[in-house]
Amino acid sequence: MTSFAPRPPPPYYAVIFTAQNRGTSPAEYASTAQRMMTLAAEQPGYLGVESAHEASGFGITVSYWSSLEAIAAWRANVEHTLVRERGRAEWYSGYELRIAKVERAYGFRAAPGEVG
Amino acid sequence: MTSFAPRPPPPYYAVIFTAQNRGTSPAEYASTAQRMMTLAAEQPGYLGVESAHEASGFGITVSYWSSLEAIAAWRANVEHTLVRERGRAEWYSGYELRIAKVERAYGFRAAPGEVG
Repeated sequence: MTSFAPRPPPPYYAVIFTAQNRGTSPAEYASTAQRMMTLAAEQPGYLGVESAHEASGFGITVSYWSSLEAIAAWRANVEHTLVRERGRAEWYSGYELRIAKVERAYGFRAAPGEVG
Repeated sequence: MTSFAPRPPPPYYAVIFTAQNRGTSPAEYASTAQRMMTLAAEQPGYLGVESAHEASGFGITVSYWSSLEAIAAWRANVEHTLVRERGRAEWYSGYELRIAKVERAYGFRAAPGEVG
């Protein structure tokens, strides 16, 4: 499922996770990534997620959170911590992680009749 | 070209652009997107970009900038402004744009021998 995250009023936080996947055990990776999406959505302060992946294995996942405390709690989640360790050991050749405070946000939707 | 942006010391700014492409005139869209990447990279305060697109047309592009002033100047660029108008009229069924201040950043690279 790829779609837009909700548009809460700023300020809130974004975790920008950019990763290069090695392509190891793709089915297991996909199910684990899906599990992490589900688990993240259950955490206090979770606001939404957006994710896109190239066929090359390069991907960006941006998750949105109400506060730095919510991000720290998700980071400390035991299952998430174990999966991060597997990510470094098995799945990713590299990643970048940035924590950023969303200060402004806006969106656009084409009128239904305009969508070609 | 999909790869990681550099890792300058925070704080700096991220423009998180998440869009659903309609699939109209894909070749022209791709060349215009490439032109915008090149033009952005020439702007003062540009720090880098990361981009990933699904086959469905859902994509995320995160560009990084030294300041809000640099982002405002890029937004005011005439060629960029015309392309944004075309984006709304022709290419995108919807998008979300978030401007966020990067407060923390770190990365990981597997040791060369580990990359499977």
